[in-house]
Amino acid sequence: QEYTNTETQNPGTVSRPDRGSTEAFPRSYCHKAQESLLSSASGYRNYRGILNWCVVMLVLSNARLFLENLLRYGILVDPIQVISLFLNDPYSWPAACLLIASNVFVLVALYTERQLSKGSFSECFGLVVHVINLATMLTFPAAVVLLVPSMTPVGGAVALGTYTILFLKLYSYKDVNLWCRELSTIKVKKLVRSLSCPLPQLSQGDEHKVCYPGNLTIRGTPTQLLLVSADMYYFVSAPTLCYELNFPRSPSVRMSFLLRRLFEMLFFTQLLVGLIQQVRSHYDMDLSRMTERLLRLAVPNHLLWLMFFYWFFHSSMNFTAELLCFGDRQFYRDWWNSESVTYFWQNWNIPVHKWCLRHFYKPLLRRGFGKMASQSAVFLLSAFFHEYLVSVPLRMFRLWAFTGMMAQLPLAWFVGRFLRGNYGNAAVWMSIIIGQPVAVLMYVHDYYVINYRQETD
Amino acid sequence: QEYTNTETQNPGTVSRPDRGSTEAFPRSYCHKAQESLLSSASGYRNYRGILNWCVVMLVLSNARLFLENLLRYGILVDPIQVISLFLNDPYSWPAACLLIASNVFVLVALYTERQLSKGSFSECFGLVVHVINLATMLTFPAAVVLLVPSMTPVGGAVALGTYTILFLKLYSYKDVNLWCRELSTIKVKKLVRSLSCPLPQLSQGDEHKVCYPGNLTIRGTPTQLLLVSADMYYFVSAPTLCYELNFPRSPSVRMSFLLRRLFEMLFFTQLLVGLIQQVRSHYDMDLSRMTERLLRLAVPNHLLWLMFFYWFFHSSMNFTAELLCFGDRQFYRDWWNSESVTYFWQNWNIPVHKWCLRHFYKPLLRRGFGKMASQSAVFLLSAFFHEYLVSVPLRMFRLWAFTGMMAQLPLAWFVGRFLRGNYGNAAVWMSIIIGQPVAVLMYVHDYYVINYRQETD
Repeated sequence: QEYTNTETQNPGTVSRPDRGSTEAFPRSYCHKAQESLLSSASGYRNYRGILNWCVVMLVLSNARLFLENLLRYGILVDPIQVISLFLNDPYSWPAACLLIASNVFVLVALYTERQLSKGSFSECFGLVVHVINLATMLTFPAAVVLLVPSMTPVGGAVALGTYTILFLKLYSYKDVNLWCRELSTIKVKKLVRSLSCPLPQLSQGDEHKVCYPGNLTIRGTPTQLLLVSADMYYFVSAPTLCYELNFPRSPSVRMSFLLRRLFEMLFFTQLLVGLIQQVRSHYDMDLSRMTERLLRLAVPNHLLWLMFFYWFFHSSMNFTAELLCFGDRQFYRDWWNSESVTYFWQNWNIPVHKWCLRHFYKPLLRRGFGKMASQSAVFLLSAFFHEYLVSVPLRMFRLWAFTGMMAQLPLAWFVGRFLRGNYGNAAVWMSIIIGQPVAVLMYVHDYYVINYRQETD
Repeated sequence: QEYTNTETQNPGTVSRPDRGSTEAFPRSYCHKAQESLLSSASGYRNYRGILNWCVVMLVLSNARLFLENLLRYGILVDPIQVISLFLNDPYSWPAACLLIASNVFVLVALYTERQLSKGSFSECFGLVVHVINLATMLTFPAAVVLLVPSMTPVGGAVALGTYTILFLKLYSYKDVNLWCRELSTIKVKKLVRSLSCPLPQLSQGDEHKVCYPGNLTIRGTPTQLLLVSADMYYFVSAPTLCYELNFPRSPSVRMSFLLRRLFEMLFFTQLLVGLIQQVRSHYDMDLSRMTERLLRLAVPNHLLWLMFFYWFFHSSMNFTAELLCFGDRQFYRDWWNSESVTYFWQNWNIPVHKWCLRHFYKPLLRRGFGKMASQSAVFLLSAFFHEYLVSVPLRMFRLWAFTGMMAQLPLAWFVGRFLRGNYGNAAVWMSIIIGQPVAVLMYVHDYYVINYRQETD
């Protein structure tokens, strides 16, 4: 009985009551009751290696393609060439002109807030200026994209995307400054300080904290406007959509981290351009037998999206953040494990999710709307912007993107109602892999019919 | 200062000192310093979703192929057809005859151990019988495979594989019974009981525990031989290579688990057969430009191996274990995360690893060999069996498999010396993805040159 107890306490070792005679004999048993790791009953979750496997497979599958593209096109990001082209003939770069013009809207928002903080503008007049400014940010670039013939769909999409991001940022800027003023008028000074100078874990740098209206008016310095603009432009270039008076900062720029992200950015740019060319040729050929080829296009289309995700949300945003010492690197959460459609939409794009929550969903709740109504309103807003960013650059209004986003609501209900765990996860993956290429195929089909078939018909 | 403390303790909630006036205002900050999940600095490891993604991608990529194969070949595992073919013409099924003949060796081992336990055989004579029995198990099927012309390479490989597994099992059977006898002769009766009736967590069933020589001689029952054979055949069919008098048992057969594993077995059989046909046609065509096509073949070859791994080590072994109520389901550990070659070889095939450790590596250590020498000896043994299982069915001795296994030793040194973490993991994946098809290609090339090129030359 004694030995049995010893075994219980130390199942991994052999009990040796009689060292000289028994040490030579190994334990005659070597099994214990346990589940396989891949069985869901095991509760095992560490698959970091699978991620590395995906990367290795990606590199190997595309090694040849990558080398060919590198040799044919060189390193695509060539800033000198871009600048020289732009300086030679500015009118052939309407998208770039639009991007430069966007500074006007930033400066209008900053000027308005400065006047509001000084009291030169009334709250009501300030709001009107902001609304006009924001409305112009959506309509002006759309009008330019639709009316200027030399605008390409890619250029238009980039310009509209940038304006949309700026729109969300300036909306947040307006909101936060308004909240700070409202708090100071109701004289909760202490709370103001705790709200506008938060994050006690960074308290060693508290002397550098900015309190409202310090972000708009820095008194006693001759370089006042420069510093105020610096605060504004830090926010404009930071990888977030939500304004804050004091962003958490990382202590320094890690050179090796920066270089790795830069390498990834260049590598995935090559890969994306190479793959898009290949996939595009497939789209070109297969217009006649679309539904038949859908499955074949779904996989490369999905891989493109995954690579775009990594390139944009990990490499590029971390690169920018590292450069700006921006501390909050949560640009995505573990959407790959999402077991419901809602979880996916809440976790794959954190900057937009944060903005929606802070400046749209919660304000709606505070105004008395229900949870379901507010959530549907968020999807409606998202559907509008999806449609806006696709329809305007392609110059055709088909509502496929809008419908696709709105279709997420019944899909979310269905998955949440009937599927759980790994099955729910698989359903989310299926909806991503199949849903996207269907929408893309719709637009590509219509675009080709409008732009190319007319001539042959 | 008070609010700052509250924030520290509850960073996720807003402190509300003045409920009526401040509840309407959201926190004006929403960022905190943190790393992205995919950065290795985050320490995040939960990628279960990626595994589901791989499965979904696999199913989608092969959905068409799978359906075609199902329609063309039907469900491949058709036991009635197999049996009827075998009964009609036994000589055209030499592999099946070999499999049936293997029972002789099992019964010889059982008989020898029974005589040894009764004292009818001396230890020395018993050892001689065992050695002859085991040696015949390796040479007899090899001779049959080499000499019978109607033996196909696949049939030969299956027969030799089964004999090799049986060889390892009977070697373990001999060892464990020997250890039990040695322990009882040195009169450590209590230890014997703790060694041959272990696993106190199953103590509620202790009355059913078998103690040596109860596994060989069950006295007082008329069905003695039947029960003894049942113990032996349970071990022969159980998914393990290491004998134990009392295996841990699962409480019951879970029907849904069994059906899911069965479905997986059938599904992967279809997929494997379909893919092998596709890959084989590639191998056929590309003999002229081999090195050029290596990269292209590496990926499907690797996918085949991965599917085989899942089919054999997860679906089939769990199916068998569930059917036999065999409790220990650890057939593999997390080799996908392995950051060194050694870790991979220790974790991808646990039954063989356990056997090598228990019946080869540790006995060598006890005889005074060094760690390095013993480890090299394990790789040498493994290399021998790899070569044996490939060369004999193909009837050509090229030592590629042997060299491939022995090349793991310098590779393990190199990876362990120079690469760490995710880089080590990527290197292990690369060696699996690239190394295997090189060896396969070598054999395929030589096989085609010998069997087909002769005629055309």
